[in-house]
Amino acid sequence: MKRRVFLRNNGLALASVPFLVSSDIIDGGNGKSGLRVQFTRDGLDLDPSEYSDLLREIAGGEDVLDNYSRFGVVKRMEEKFAELLGMESAVFMPTGTMANLIAVRKHAGLNKRVLVQADSHIYNDTGDGAQVLAGLNLIPLAERKTSFTLDEVMEAIERNDQGRVKTGVGAISIESPVRRRNNEVFSFNEMVKISGYARSRGIKMHLDGARLFNAVAHSGIPAKDYASLFDTVYISLYKDFNAASGAVLCGAKVFTEELFHTRRMFGGGMPQAWPFASVALYYADSFLPDYAEAMKRFTIFSEILNRREEFEISKIENGTNVFLMKVSTNNISGFIEKLAAKGIDLPRPAENIFYPKINNTLLRVDPEKLAGYFIDSLR
Amino acid sequence: MKRRVFLRNNGLALASVPFLVSSDIIDGGNGKSGLRVQFTRDGLDLDPSEYSDLLREIAGGEDVLDNYSRFGVVKRMEEKFAELLGMESAVFMPTGTMANLIAVRKHAGLNKRVLVQADSHIYNDTGDGAQVLAGLNLIPLAERKTSFTLDEVMEAIERNDQGRVKTGVGAISIESPVRRRNNEVFSFNEMVKISGYARSRGIKMHLDGARLFNAVAHSGIPAKDYASLFDTVYISLYKDFNAASGAVLCGAKVFTEELFHTRRMFGGGMPQAWPFASVALYYADSFLPDYAEAMKRFTIFSEILNRREEFEISKIENGTNVFLMKVSTNNISGFIEKLAAKGIDLPRPAENIFYPKINNTLLRVDPEKLAGYFIDSLR
Amino acid sequence: MKRRVFLRNNGLALASVPFLVSSDIIDGGNGKSGLRVQFTRDGLDLDPSEYSDLLREIAGGEDVLDNYSRFGVVKRMEEKFAELLGMESAVFMPTGTMANLIAVRKHAGLNKRVLVQADSHIYNDTGDGAQVLAGLNLIPLAERKTSFTLDEVMEAIERNDQGRVKTGVGAISIESPVRRRNNEVFSFNEMVKISGYARSRGIKMHLDGARLFNAVAHSGIPAKDYASLFDTVYISLYKDFNAASGAVLCGAKVFTEELFHTRRMFGGGMPQAWPFASVALYYADSFLPDYAEAMKRFTIFSEILNRREEFEISKIENGTNVFLMKVSTNNISGFIEKLAAKGIDLPRPAENIFYPKINNTLLRVDPEKLAGYFIDSLR
Amino acid sequence: MKRRVFLRNNGLALASVPFLVSSDIIDGGNGKSGLRVQFTRDGLDLDPSEYSDLLREIAGGEDVLDNYSRFGVVKRMEEKFAELLGMESAVFMPTGTMANLIAVRKHAGLNKRVLVQADSHIYNDTGDGAQVLAGLNLIPLAERKTSFTLDEVMEAIERNDQGRVKTGVGAISIESPVRRRNNEVFSFNEMVKISGYARSRGIKMHLDGARLFNAVAHSGIPAKDYASLFDTVYISLYKDFNAASGAVLCGAKVFTEELFHTRRMFGGGMPQAWPFASVALYYADSFLPDYAEAMKRFTIFSEILNRREEFEISKIENGTNVFLMKVSTNNISGFIEKLAAKGIDLPRPAENIFYPKINNTLLRVDPEKLAGYFIDSLR
Repeated sequence: MKRRVFLRNNGLALASVPFLVSSDIIDGGNGKSGLRVQFTRDGLDLDPSEYSDLLREIAGGEDVLDNYSRFGVVKRMEEKFAELLGMESAVFMPTGTMANLIAVRKHAGLNKRVLVQADSHIYNDTGDGAQVLAGLNLIPLAERKTSFTLDEVMEAIERNDQGRVKTGVGAISIESPVRRRNNEVFSFNEMVKISGYARSRGIKMHLDGARLFNAVAHSGIPAKDYASLFDTVYISLYKDFNAASGAVLCGAKVFTEELFHTRRMFGGGMPQAWPFASVALYYADSFLPDYAEAMKRFTIFSEILNRREEFEISKIENGTNVFLMKVSTNNISGFIEKLAAKGIDLPRPAENIFYPKINNTLLRVDPEKLAGYFIDSLR
Repeated sequence: MKRRVFLRNNGLALASVPFLVSSDIIDGGNGKSGLRVQFTRDGLDLDPSEYSDLLREIAGGEDVLDNYSRFGVVKRMEEKFAELLGMESAVFMPTGTMANLIAVRKHAGLNKRVLVQADSHIYNDTGDGAQVLAGLNLIPLAERKTSFTLDEVMEAIERNDQGRVKTGVGAISIESPVRRRNNEVFSFNEMVKISGYARSRGIKMHLDGARLFNAVAHSGIPAKDYASLFDTVYISLYKDFNAASGAVLCGAKVFTEELFHTRRMFGGGMPQAWPFASVALYYADSFLPDYAEAMKRFTIFSEILNRREEFEISKIENGTNVFLMKVSTNNISGFIEKLAAKGIDLPRPAENIFYPKINNTLLRVDPEKLAGYFIDSLR
Repeated sequence: MKRRVFLRNNGLALASVPFLVSSDIIDGGNGKSGLRVQFTRDGLDLDPSEYSDLLREIAGGEDVLDNYSRFGVVKRMEEKFAELLGMESAVFMPTGTMANLIAVRKHAGLNKRVLVQADSHIYNDTGDGAQVLAGLNLIPLAERKTSFTLDEVMEAIERNDQGRVKTGVGAISIESPVRRRNNEVFSFNEMVKISGYARSRGIKMHLDGARLFNAVAHSGIPAKDYASLFDTVYISLYKDFNAASGAVLCGAKVFTEELFHTRRMFGGGMPQAWPFASVALYYADSFLPDYAEAMKRFTIFSEILNRREEFEISKIENGTNVFLMKVSTNNISGFIEKLAAKGIDLPRPAENIFYPKINNTLLRVDPEKLAGYFIDSLR
Repeated sequence: MKRRVFLRNNGLALASVPFLVSSDIIDGGNGKSGLRVQFTRDGLDLDPSEYSDLLREIAGGEDVLDNYSRFGVVKRMEEKFAELLGMESAVFMPTGTMANLIAVRKHAGLNKRVLVQADSHIYNDTGDGAQVLAGLNLIPLAERKTSFTLDEVMEAIERNDQGRVKTGVGAISIESPVRRRNNEVFSFNEMVKISGYARSRGIKMHLDGARLFNAVAHSGIPAKDYASLFDTVYISLYKDFNAASGAVLCGAKVFTEELFHTRRMFGGGMPQAWPFASVALYYADSFLPDYAEAMKRFTIFSEILNRREEFEISKIENGTNVFLMKVSTNNISGFIEKLAAKGIDLPRPAENIFYPKINNTLLRVDPEKLAGYFIDSLR
């Protein structure tokens, strides 16, 4: 199968652009704007033109249309992700925010305390929906850290039991990788311990695995091994899987099968979700092998640059697809602009330090050529 | 401008199919499956293939891409609908359920009572999100009726004031047309009176105008005249405007401009909404003239059938795009099947009575021919 | 046992006033202010002086003091009311509002719809706590009536099932007698039918029986028979049982035993509740026999007055302790004032119609004398 | 005025026991059980017998009776506490839990984040009512400390502003003294700075001053100076002011005057609250002078004991009425029992360390005698 890792359409008829796959190494050929490699996103960041082309190709068949986000390609996408995680079933959600919210709300039931990381998305970036709309009390652990420990979990639960009013901890939500912490992963060992303890106490486990497959790629731990520790896992369709929007929440059938009612109550029952689900399904199986190739290319690219004094690329401890790159130059903005002119986007630096993200747009370019562009842009 | 009211792509290269506009009368020409006229939906009911083609055509330009449902074509769509309603501004919502919920929640503030129709969508078909998630008390009025009156509003407010605990009525929500009541319209005269009273009491007015433009077409009352009575108006992008999903909530700038935060809190902050907004914008200006033509054709079609004993098509009092059609035959399912074979879909009947919906798929066929198909299908 | 149905202390040392019981017929002897009979309340309406005297007498023993509304006399009161209703256990609540709210909230769980009477206390007089604080959707039935029927219940549930989003009915709450409807009783036959149906569907039944013992006295149906139809029953300690405040919620042990946590969450965990519980316990067994005597006296009193043209006292259909009394006079306020001067309080009339309430202050006076006072006061 | 700091009634007719005031030094005279000095509570811990006697004395006059916790002695109590704090008005609440909850809920409005101490009552001991019932997000600051700083406040607000979804901090709640931290006081200097900052940002300030008057006594800072930094202040009627239950919430008139509706919505609208309000009013003016005398006596008592090797009594840094007492003995339970036999109650020790609480029961005994009892009990 050939998978589209689109070039931007720069005047060429699209029909004449071969699909880009990991075995092709193409850089647009005809000039700077032809190449489109970015270090700013987790996914391909398809533009509307590319996206529409893809939809036209993949959404034309039978049994695509869904009905209020059920059936059709939505159902097939759900089944695919459930299978990837080794879980019984899955349900589409319009956003990860809603997936996390609906999951922890249902897990908690009347035990309204939920343990979370202080730097997690659900605690910082959701407008406090869990608290405001679901009346949950999110207890932040591990201030300024990526992982919390079983000890910290036990202490939080014990403190609760000492309170004058018994308030059950209904769920533990773990985000991994953690966006606010440069996509670092939560310690797998602690996950295992916490999961065992939680299950012995009847506390439910939820994984905000928006970018779980990045953790899988970097840790070598299979997605199913992660999933086996949790009652529910949310995966973003928007990040690694290139859908314009969308999320999928995986878990036991008894947990997910009536969730479309709750999804609708929150205003997430979209009449048609096939424009998202079809794209995520398209990339579901290919993300991991493509990303392995992207990592390989990034390693070659890094080795070339690290041989030079002006560059220093290094791993982040417990990191995944975010790296640290120091560039020695007095003209950092010139450097950025020259690369941009070649179709290479870097994230905004803090002084001369960048945190580039690896993603599958690296499949669009030969790593030696890419390194060459970087070196040239310093001149 | 030419607007697509797609034929199903039945083997023909799409490029060879002229766009269908109200001045064209085309029935697919080459056979039964070419025609696709349905009486079951408010909109065109584009299939994924048609939809992708359309996206490819309209979503390729500059400034389409939005960022978490802001900017790009989403912003242009918002501005267009605000303009159509004569309101200051508008904000995209993924569903009408969320649009209604967020609107009445904000209007109510700490005055948690909201008056609604007993047969309204918000009272019956939203999983009680307003109550469960926003703690509102929806007071149902006008049991088994489409409209409530100013007297009923005043009585409900007075009863409230007599309660031992003062509980303010913060908002009045009116749905019109009303889906559960065959898309009948709420009395405009009562709307005017209720609006005046509500404003004198500081009570906010919300219009669930999912299908407002159908009311506009049938009542002759301009959309701006409706909107002037309300603080907010929700319009569905999915029904008359053919987007796969989506809604737009119009109101004063001070009301809408920060609502994207609330939208995100509910889990409605989709990373990209251009696949919906671009389609709704595409049809925004054409719906009314196209629908006028569709009504004209339906009138001709009805007159032809009403001259025959076997058919009786009549208006519903205060109705809009739903009509009543009695068909005298012993073989109703045969009749339905024969029409379906010609590409004409009817809703499920109650015995021999149908409630067909007018929509712009009527532009795909000549009304005399259509009537002929109906007559032939009885044989 | 002698029970205090206090005279107002009018200059006499209290020690010299014998306790008033149903076998005594005393009218204060020494003048108008000595008598205190009112027709305005359900209970004795003890004033602070009387109440303090009573507390001093009954709260001095062992094991009175409670600890945050648990143990001591609170526990004994709870056990007593559970026994009176034939239920397993009971829990003190500071108010009936909180008792109803906590009961239906817990019954409903995640099935947030609760059927109630349109004229019930919980729907009208609680500031919408059930909706605002617990996110429940109270569905009002039986507009302007006292009882709803099983048919109405089934229709409300069916309508719910037809909604696009499944929203379970978690509980049915019935108030009886109904304060807003002159303390009329809900039809016992319908209660039986509704209870059977609800149980077959897993829907919980709650009785707002603030004045249940008035219903018991007038219907002859034992409290236990009412209670057997419900999962929880709330009884006011403030009305028939003369506590300054307080309520008791009876039900299965599994339902009530952890409710003190919830009570505290709502802010109802009073450090000491013995000043309420001890008084309610004091009157728990005596209310019914005393009230039987009060009814007897009211019957004698009514018969005397009904023999005269100027008076017409009649029962209210399905009524309990509220009656209808027409008085023919041109000087209604003079009539009221003359009775007040004798220590007899009437409720405010609507023109010449009164709705007097029977209560145990009737034990303070001989019915013939009381009738005489009424007749004299018309002169 | 003479104020009751009751002796337990040990056989003597109460009429013959003179009221105990700070100028009397009485130890019951006739034996061990006559003395009742405890180091376990903030207040006198009146038993039901004493409490009823007091009520009988103070609740007999005119204008005592309230109507659903309004008017009568409740109103006079509210006015008294407003005056003590130099605030405009006050409203009775059945518990401090409800007072805090209703205050921060109203302050927050739609800005649902509230900053609190991690060790505060509202964060630990209320069953998460603020989160569950009001949808607030309580942000815990100052883990394992008594005070947080302005810097910590600013950081918490800034973090919030960086979140993807803007979520306003609506209120800052400060508890002082802090029960879970041995009644230590929050830094007054930080309070001043935080208050200034909060007001400049429109963030409301709430003081959980359950035991504020202990802070006043130990810091020398007048209650009005504390109150001037806050929009609302809650004072417990149960602790320093000896009511069986109850709280008072003080603030601007515009804030408090309609709160009785909200109180009722939460189930806190008790029909009669005079049994609590009258007692709190009785002790409102006398607490501070009595407590000054109690501190004086405790100082004398401590000095005597500290001269001996077996005892070491010391202050807690930033402490109020809780002290630290080490006792050198091999028989700590014998020591406790001997004191109990004399009518002196100590809190449970951790090994040989006690945290005794000063309260006004110290007025019941001469400090030299008290010290003697302690010394004797070690033998």
